[in-house]
Amino acid sequence: MVSGQKLYKKAKKIIPGGTMLLSKRPEMFLPEKWPSYFSRARGCNVWDLNGNEFIDVSIMGIGTNTLGYGHIEVDNAVINTVKKGNMSTLNCPEEVYLAEKLIEINPWAEMVRFARTGGEANAIAIRIARAAAGKDNVAICGYHGWHDWYLSVNHNSSGEDLSNHLLPGLSPRGVPKNLKNSVFPFKYNDFEELKKLVEQYDIGVIKMEVERNYGPEDNFLEKIRNLATQKGIVLIFDECTTGFRETYGGIHKKYNVEPDLAMYGKTLGNGYAITSVIGKREVMEAAQSTFISSTFWTERIGPTAAIKTLEVMQKERSWENITNIGLKVQKYWKKLSEDHKLTINISGIPALSSFVFLKNHNEYKTYITQEMLKKGFLAGTTLYASIAHKKNIIESYFNALDEVFLNLSKCESGDKNIFDLLENQVSDTGFKRLN
Amino acid sequence: MVSGQKLYKKAKKIIPGGTMLLSKRPEMFLPEKWPSYFSRARGCNVWDLNGNEFIDVSIMGIGTNTLGYGHIEVDNAVINTVKKGNMSTLNCPEEVYLAEKLIEINPWAEMVRFARTGGEANAIAIRIARAAAGKDNVAICGYHGWHDWYLSVNHNSSGEDLSNHLLPGLSPRGVPKNLKNSVFPFKYNDFEELKKLVEQYDIGVIKMEVERNYGPEDNFLEKIRNLATQKGIVLIFDECTTGFRETYGGIHKKYNVEPDLAMYGKTLGNGYAITSVIGKREVMEAAQSTFISSTFWTERIGPTAAIKTLEVMQKERSWENITNIGLKVQKYWKKLSEDHKLTINISGIPALSSFVFLKNHNEYKTYITQEMLKKGFLAGTTLYASIAHKKNIIESYFNALDEVFLNLSKCESGDKNIFDLLENQVSDTGFKRLN
Repeated sequence: MVSGQKLYKKAKKIIPGGTMLLSKRPEMFLPEKWPSYFSRARGCNVWDLNGNEFIDVSIMGIGTNTLGYGHIEVDNAVINTVKKGNMSTLNCPEEVYLAEKLIEINPWAEMVRFARTGGEANAIAIRIARAAAGKDNVAICGYHGWHDWYLSVNHNSSGEDLSNHLLPGLSPRGVPKNLKNSVFPFKYNDFEELKKLVEQYDIGVIKMEVERNYGPEDNFLEKIRNLATQKGIVLIFDECTTGFRETYGGIHKKYNVEPDLAMYGKTLGNGYAITSVIGKREVMEAAQSTFISSTFWTERIGPTAAIKTLEVMQKERSWENITNIGLKVQKYWKKLSEDHKLTINISGIPALSSFVFLKNHNEYKTYITQEMLKKGFLAGTTLYASIAHKKNIIESYFNALDEVFLNLSKCESGDKNIFDLLENQVSDTGFKRLN
Repeated sequence: MVSGQKLYKKAKKIIPGGTMLLSKRPEMFLPEKWPSYFSRARGCNVWDLNGNEFIDVSIMGIGTNTLGYGHIEVDNAVINTVKKGNMSTLNCPEEVYLAEKLIEINPWAEMVRFARTGGEANAIAIRIARAAAGKDNVAICGYHGWHDWYLSVNHNSSGEDLSNHLLPGLSPRGVPKNLKNSVFPFKYNDFEELKKLVEQYDIGVIKMEVERNYGPEDNFLEKIRNLATQKGIVLIFDECTTGFRETYGGIHKKYNVEPDLAMYGKTLGNGYAITSVIGKREVMEAAQSTFISSTFWTERIGPTAAIKTLEVMQKERSWENITNIGLKVQKYWKKLSEDHKLTINISGIPALSSFVFLKNHNEYKTYITQEMLKKGFLAGTTLYASIAHKKNIIESYFNALDEVFLNLSKCESGDKNIFDLLENQVSDTGFKRLN
């Protein structure tokens, strides 16, 4: 019987970084103890390699599965496509049907391209936007993937400009140094900073997450839209993370501000690889003047899964459902922390809720993961909601968390020491070389 | 009943460029008449949206399906994975098993990363290699995807440097101009040119296709290997196209020259999206000093399909099978053209065979596609072999082609005019803006 930790030790020897996604590194959760690998997933239940069952009240595949794992209607559509053939010399009609559906959902958009990962969708959008603007310089706010264009920010003078957008301590090694001073970050809700960048650096493209931990203030989005329109700047909303979590489409719908381009990813195919770039015709047509082409963007599972996912989302009004779950979770966290006299800050849109302890956050978070795992939960201080998080699951989660918080309150009062309670190292908080 | 052409007309209005892959544009085959979309694919048979059946003796999904479309063992493995769940907060163990398998197949390699498209695998390899070399400048030979780092070649002084490697007439619009003079192409078999580039531009990375239309001469590969070793240059073999077509692994095995990094893609998952970067430990470890991370690289179908595909390939010795088919096809093409007094040049490794007519190539090629389609074949002047191309299929293909060549020979002798025979426009030969 291979345990997850045993397999992960092997993985670290043959996969640099151990996993394909930094956020799924076992060290980010519980060093030496995290189950690491799954054999099966269904609803919000996950089974490890030894058949142990856990309830996932953590990142739910990093937010890919708002309909829960293994949604039967989506899976059946995918199986049907596998049986009919995933690939051929001809194209799959599903990509056209999906393009039509996304345009229907986003009436401001007229054209669509697809990719299979979020990093790709970001790189496509930047290519198209730069081609349309005829300018190379970009202003960014938020997380936009791993590609050169984005990481080059850390070649700029401070060398740490991505600390507040991606992760602290990221080296831009392997990213061409010539890209220095082509991409400039601005702080969320700081319109004046953006305005200065635009004036100083002849910015052609603004790319941003519409909302991450907190919402726009003082007409931040409207001001950016107006600035972009006045200056002929292409405005891109990166909705890879926020899409389909508060509206049937982008979170920008909530604020009534329309971009020139937008990307969707993560939850678009409920766990199957599909991402998209949508946009206004005059901008998207610039894609015709540059080479954007990849073999596996023609596979059929991605658009099949997305079409069915969008249908189920619409039927279930999943964005309302997961927002209500998230609101309830935030309320319970608040109550539980008050009951136990623990001071926490809650943030995030409801469907992507997180909290931090004002004191000893990382130690307390690691302890929560350690203890909740024993009780059958994958848990930390982040809960990405899915429609599979039914009432009884959330209740059982909070019953279990109550006991953990009780011990943390004893650490606060000095009756216990958190370092005595931790059985292993504290979890990693960001980017780190693995041994 | 929606026909493929009708759907494609709609697609061109909402998808810039019409398709996700340039090589699958209907205009590249037969403008106005190509079936464009498929409903079903199995073996080397493809059904269009109206249920018409065709035998694919063309690009076989651009070389993705050497085991034929819808291989039952691969498909069943994928279906099983779908039923168990494609995604979760935990990682899929299949990525570790696949990494182990690729290292077993390539004993010179010690570490592996996965992506889902060939462009991504190329971008990952370049990032890792630049980080390991500590230098930005790259020498390239061949086709390596759509990303900025590669297309930037056309910002160099001539502006047309990629004409011989990718496509003529490609504009680098939307690619940052600062990347000018960071990537330099060299001609295949021109070692002196490469040597000069290395001296002149402090090259840190050499990336090349090992063989494309013809093989190495005068110890070309050994010389490059020695140069790279002497100068501390990271040598990358891009085996996305050539991998698993002549050996169980890279075509570099045939020449006994080992790179520092290599990529596999296309046929690795027999039509499912999975690509990989493999390499020596000291180079691959550089991935730990830079951020390379993407949500959908953690999905489970890709590695599942690749593990089963590698197993079936090994069992069937598919690389020998498709090479024999290709050799037979090249022999038949030669004989048929001689019989009909048509002068053609045959090129490509056997499993990726092509020919060009010395006169009127594009008109003749379009006519072949036009007439063969009527006879139930997807055909041009390229045949990517799969194990589904059984003897009887190849025979029926050549029987049908014989009649088409007969008419072409009449064009040669002046008895007929090719432009009278063509019912529509001639096919596109490369990159072109669509209306």
